[in-house]
Amino acid sequence: MIRNPDADISDDLLEALKKVSVPTATATLMVRGFQNTFPIGIDPKAVRSGQVMVGRARTLRFIPMREDLVKAQYDTVEGRPHRQAIESIEPGEILVIDAGGCLGAGVVGDMFTRRVQARGGTGIVIDGVVRDLVGIREVGLPVFCRGAHGAGINRMLMSVGVNEPVQIGGVPVLPGDILLGDPDGLVVVPPQEVKHLVEHGVEHDQQEEFTRLKLADGYPLHKAYPPDKELQKEYEIWKKTR
Amino acid sequence: MIRNPDADISDDLLEALKKVSVPTATATLMVRGFQNTFPIGIDPKAVRSGQVMVGRARTLRFIPMREDLVKAQYDTVEGRPHRQAIESIEPGEILVIDAGGCLGAGVVGDMFTRRVQARGGTGIVIDGVVRDLVGIREVGLPVFCRGAHGAGINRMLMSVGVNEPVQIGGVPVLPGDILLGDPDGLVVVPPQEVKHLVEHGVEHDQQEEFTRLKLADGYPLHKAYPPDKELQKEYEIWKKTR
Amino acid sequence: MIRNPDADISDDLLEALKKVSVPTATATLMVRGFQNTFPIGIDPKAVRSGQVMVGRARTLRFIPMREDLVKAQYDTVEGRPHRQAIESIEPGEILVIDAGGCLGAGVVGDMFTRRVQARGGTGIVIDGVVRDLVGIREVGLPVFCRGAHGAGINRMLMSVGVNEPVQIGGVPVLPGDILLGDPDGLVVVPPQEVKHLVEHGVEHDQQEEFTRLKLADGYPLHKAYPPDKELQKEYEIWKKTR
Amino acid sequence: MIRNPDADISDDLLEALKKVSVPTATATLMVRGFQNTFPIGIDPKAVRSGQVMVGRARTLRFIPMREDLVKAQYDTVEGRPHRQAIESIEPGEILVIDAGGCLGAGVVGDMFTRRVQARGGTGIVIDGVVRDLVGIREVGLPVFCRGAHGAGINRMLMSVGVNEPVQIGGVPVLPGDILLGDPDGLVVVPPQEVKHLVEHGVEHDQQEEFTRLKLADGYPLHKAYPPDKELQKEYEIWKKTR
Amino acid sequence: MIRNPDADISDDLLEALKKVSVPTATATLMVRGFQNTFPIGIDPKAVRSGQVMVGRARTLRFIPMREDLVKAQYDTVEGRPHRQAIESIEPGEILVIDAGGCLGAGVVGDMFTRRVQARGGTGIVIDGVVRDLVGIREVGLPVFCRGAHGAGINRMLMSVGVNEPVQIGGVPVLPGDILLGDPDGLVVVPPQEVKHLVEHGVEHDQQEEFTRLKLADGYPLHKAYPPDKELQKEYEIWKKTR
Amino acid sequence: MIRNPDADISDDLLEALKKVSVPTATATLMVRGFQNTFPIGIDPKAVRSGQVMVGRARTLRFIPMREDLVKAQYDTVEGRPHRQAIESIEPGEILVIDAGGCLGAGVVGDMFTRRVQARGGTGIVIDGVVRDLVGIREVGLPVFCRGAHGAGINRMLMSVGVNEPVQIGGVPVLPGDILLGDPDGLVVVPPQEVKHLVEHGVEHDQQEEFTRLKLADGYPLHKAYPPDKELQKEYEIWKKTR
Repeated sequence: MIRNPDADISDDLLEALKKVSVPTATATLMVRGFQNTFPIGIDPKAVRSGQVMVGRARTLRFIPMREDLVKAQYDTVEGRPHRQAIESIEPGEILVIDAGGCLGAGVVGDMFTRRVQARGGTGIVIDGVVRDLVGIREVGLPVFCRGAHGAGINRMLMSVGVNEPVQIGGVPVLPGDILLGDPDGLVVVPPQEVKHLVEHGVEHDQQEEFTRLKLADGYPLHKAYPPDKELQKEYEIWKKTR
Repeated sequence: MIRNPDADISDDLLEALKKVSVPTATATLMVRGFQNTFPIGIDPKAVRSGQVMVGRARTLRFIPMREDLVKAQYDTVEGRPHRQAIESIEPGEILVIDAGGCLGAGVVGDMFTRRVQARGGTGIVIDGVVRDLVGIREVGLPVFCRGAHGAGINRMLMSVGVNEPVQIGGVPVLPGDILLGDPDGLVVVPPQEVKHLVEHGVEHDQQEEFTRLKLADGYPLHKAYPPDKELQKEYEIWKKTR
Repeated sequence: MIRNPDADISDDLLEALKKVSVPTATATLMVRGFQNTFPIGIDPKAVRSGQVMVGRARTLRFIPMREDLVKAQYDTVEGRPHRQAIESIEPGEILVIDAGGCLGAGVVGDMFTRRVQARGGTGIVIDGVVRDLVGIREVGLPVFCRGAHGAGINRMLMSVGVNEPVQIGGVPVLPGDILLGDPDGLVVVPPQEVKHLVEHGVEHDQQEEFTRLKLADGYPLHKAYPPDKELQKEYEIWKKTR
Repeated sequence: MIRNPDADISDDLLEALKKVSVPTATATLMVRGFQNTFPIGIDPKAVRSGQVMVGRARTLRFIPMREDLVKAQYDTVEGRPHRQAIESIEPGEILVIDAGGCLGAGVVGDMFTRRVQARGGTGIVIDGVVRDLVGIREVGLPVFCRGAHGAGINRMLMSVGVNEPVQIGGVPVLPGDILLGDPDGLVVVPPQEVKHLVEHGVEHDQQEEFTRLKLADGYPLHKAYPPDKELQKEYEIWKKTR
Repeated sequence: MIRNPDADISDDLLEALKKVSVPTATATLMVRGFQNTFPIGIDPKAVRSGQVMVGRARTLRFIPMREDLVKAQYDTVEGRPHRQAIESIEPGEILVIDAGGCLGAGVVGDMFTRRVQARGGTGIVIDGVVRDLVGIREVGLPVFCRGAHGAGINRMLMSVGVNEPVQIGGVPVLPGDILLGDPDGLVVVPPQEVKHLVEHGVEHDQQEEFTRLKLADGYPLHKAYPPDKELQKEYEIWKKTR
Repeated sequence: MIRNPDADISDDLLEALKKVSVPTATATLMVRGFQNTFPIGIDPKAVRSGQVMVGRARTLRFIPMREDLVKAQYDTVEGRPHRQAIESIEPGEILVIDAGGCLGAGVVGDMFTRRVQARGGTGIVIDGVVRDLVGIREVGLPVFCRGAHGAGINRMLMSVGVNEPVQIGGVPVLPGDILLGDPDGLVVVPPQEVKHLVEHGVEHDQQEEFTRLKLADGYPLHKAYPPDKELQKEYEIWKKTR
């Protein structure tokens, strides 16, 4: 069974991760050996300006529906993996749905979104579409997806598994992965890397702020980005005096 | 000849349809046996927040242009199907243009949009692109399309037919179909289904409002969405006391 | 109404067109002002080695099916445009079907193919797919299409018009256009251009044969392709002595 | 858990299914209520002329690889789901691999193919690509896939599950589904439908053979396809005298 | 060597070009014989309402990276074509980057954007993506591209040439071409055409303003767009009295 | 300037490379650190059964044509980069053409192919299409491309550079790279890796032949592929006794 290594991720650590930007996290993970962490095409469709999403992944997987099975699936209100996934959301979790990129059936509407929020979930990420962006934006929970379709799940899909390894926008997502999202996009962080990201990210962001000042002063790239030896010294002083 | 069944759709009925949301209409049509009513990729590019578009379809069809024929087409100002389509728009109609998804030639600019509006048209829907979104947004008429291209029709297209059956974003549209659009998307309604949508939609929306209240109170999905027997009773009372 | 200019195309002329290759026809039409005559993606899926297809276009158009209309369409055996199109095929005609590129429903199987052949049709061209390539290849009639799908028309499509202007692989096709196809592909010839193609093609092919001989002798491109003044003289002599 | 209904499918029944063509099976399943059974884009890349593949599905699922996990996966020779899947193949089974349509890593080469064959497997179906078509064609086992890529699995993928519900070319495949493939394509048959297909298919094929004779005699479609009352009688007699 | 004809384009002329809209420029260039000047899919991702970008193209070309070469490329801070391109930007230039449409690596972040701005560059155009749209939007320099990816260049690309002919969204761009961009899109202007565009554009825009007034008065298209003889006279008077 | 490291590649070494299969070369290059060497979508359209292509890359680059420049380009017979590229082909070279994946204009016909062959070229590789596959197949020179289009270059393209770094099917190709192609596909080999490939490939192929024998004997994958310790010994003996 493919699964994540154990990693103790406190709520404080998750909170600290919010201060790292998505591009900084993606670039840092590359240096650490993870090349494929930024899903392509899964856009911040319901994310407010300045809003940051952080949480642990709970996954859900859909495949194209088969008529006889989807009927059985709808005989009981409880017996459907997608509803089980939502009703098992824990505080601090993000519902990560692999709908195979399907554009022809909305897998989440404002009701499901409200329920995830009510259970303490911190976001929803879909390789697929929602049913109503207008309604979902009113809820306030961050949602990343490919767009919207007016029809519900059973037009094309059926849910088949909860908390399995899945893919989102070409990126692997395992249960327990940490997701970080903001209006620039989304990055999937292996849990053992969160600590490094938080430590490195603060330093990196300070350095970029310093570089911005130097570029504004007219410094060329090879002096300021990254700082050359001379500016590196200046940066160390600047950092202390902030 | 493939055509719509007769259906008497009063202006009042059309007005009432505006109160039904696009996702509700799409889902209701599925229950009624219509699986394919929500065009994919035809986005509300010039639709204002809260704006709702309703109208009867007048269709127009383009194919890739042929050089000798497009020259003939431009010899006279009147003798072009696309101009005929616009000049025959009746109040309450929507101009529905099948341009085969072409991204390389804008089929409507702010002039055509203004003329549709002046004739009482209530919207324009294009499986293709417009020429200038900025100018069209100023007009105020709702326009759904795939985007914009600076060049005009004759770069790639010629118009060949008015009020034929066409397709838009993979959905069939017949003359006389009713289109409903809002910032969540677009749905094509067979005329005989409008009455049912209006009746069902009001009830459905009330029920969803009730469900939202219950989700906010912490009810799980299998109790509140849809309401179970217990909540159904409570809903009936709530509905009467509003 | 967009239609072809009158052009008298005798059966002898059509027969002579078979001697012109598809690339030569495409290139010659470009010089004559027709840039867009070679459909992309409409492959010779059932064309035998050395087989050449020539004929006049009879067109048929499909759009995505609507459930209530497709049922009505199937109430009578005769009342369906696609069957009307086949049963009206004249000797020397090619059935040209615009199925909007649909890959999810075969619009022609070996039965329809046999009937087109029995009526004297000389080929079938589809912007879409057939049901069974193996069976169709046995018939022997040339068929150009995008591939195969096991399901029939009514899985996704309904026929809506016969002998209208349509598009095939991004190229306009009008009733009466002349189609020329071989294992290299397909070209759509405006009827008034057939005569020029036949006259020019014979000359062009002779010249290319001469160029091949010269390239085999080691001549560089700027001498042999096309022949420079010196080789042009030699070519004129060679041509007479064949 | 989504799974197939129980169905007793004898080896004789499977053998009989080989006589039903893929288009007949697809069309019959549609009448029985199964609209989505023919995967699109999963082509008979290593299927010999006249070869028919029938078997029970054993599934395997890949997602994009993650660097730290794929290393762990390769530490042991046995501990990889894709090798487990192959080494658990039973006689009469088809290995059905959902590689998410990945074109950048071959998931099966001629070694894996030979091992599936050695264990009595009757075919391989991949929503993805193989490593070497030339080598695989020599083995003789039918393989359906999207093409070939020279690199192996770990360039882009890791295996995560055996005998889960998966999708292939947009079609759901459950463990125990029956797959039927020939040079016309591939169809996924719910196990409870095999018996009906076999019974119906023989009749259907006879009728089509009769129709072919009548079309050769010049009968129009509305008389011969399907046979009208008059020809239906003639067909019944013809059938008995064969 | 393919290069632009000499054309003297004063800063005043460039400034005047800002008054011509992108659709007007595209349509005018078509009349002048340039069919392909509006890149498709290169959207105004960081362009403020009302902002207009004009400048001379300095080009940069990327191809997919090769591991051994990209390492060499990063050994020195200066020795990389993409940094050379930025550090050689002259006032009034636009950095035009052909990244082959790559969606998997951001080629420009807010640092590079700030440096282009600091050197007097007037915009950045990318057939590819940036790293952080939020940060880039704060800079204020207009940027046209396909979207954003969190990773930097070396995830997939390496720079190979400065000021070569390139393509952007299917449109050729040569060093010295003039680019005009606004929230409606982007047009590439051969330098020798700028003067004509400026002269023609003012006239054209006035005429369109007059047409808008007439459409608001209820004039049909064939009278007002373009103005017929009668309205043409009225227009000439109206123009003088403004 | 990005360029290949020096590498002395004798004709004997190139000849020896022909004995390495494309999948073996791709996989070996991955182990050596080169992940992206197998172009996707560039198929062996004119490669005979058993034919192997090996040679040094001479590159040629096209971009979309601009009308005024392409006219100038055609004023002289010699002054066009694509003809210069062909006329400078040396024995043992492969013409590698980056046409940006364009499907709408054939960049090579049977004349250009014959000239490349006459100059001693060993193949042509195109990220784009040819004009006539039937004619080219008769020549006998291996050609890899995306398909065919009847029109010539100037319908959509113009040549802009010879022997620059380019991309083919998403893979970087530099002048002097070694290309290896067979009916399984194509691999681009950095020149410094050829020697290792040849040495490793012979060993690898022998081992695979041994594994095939063992699989035929019923050995499981974890014993035979790759050989475990026990079989490794047996292999060493087997190898010597061949």
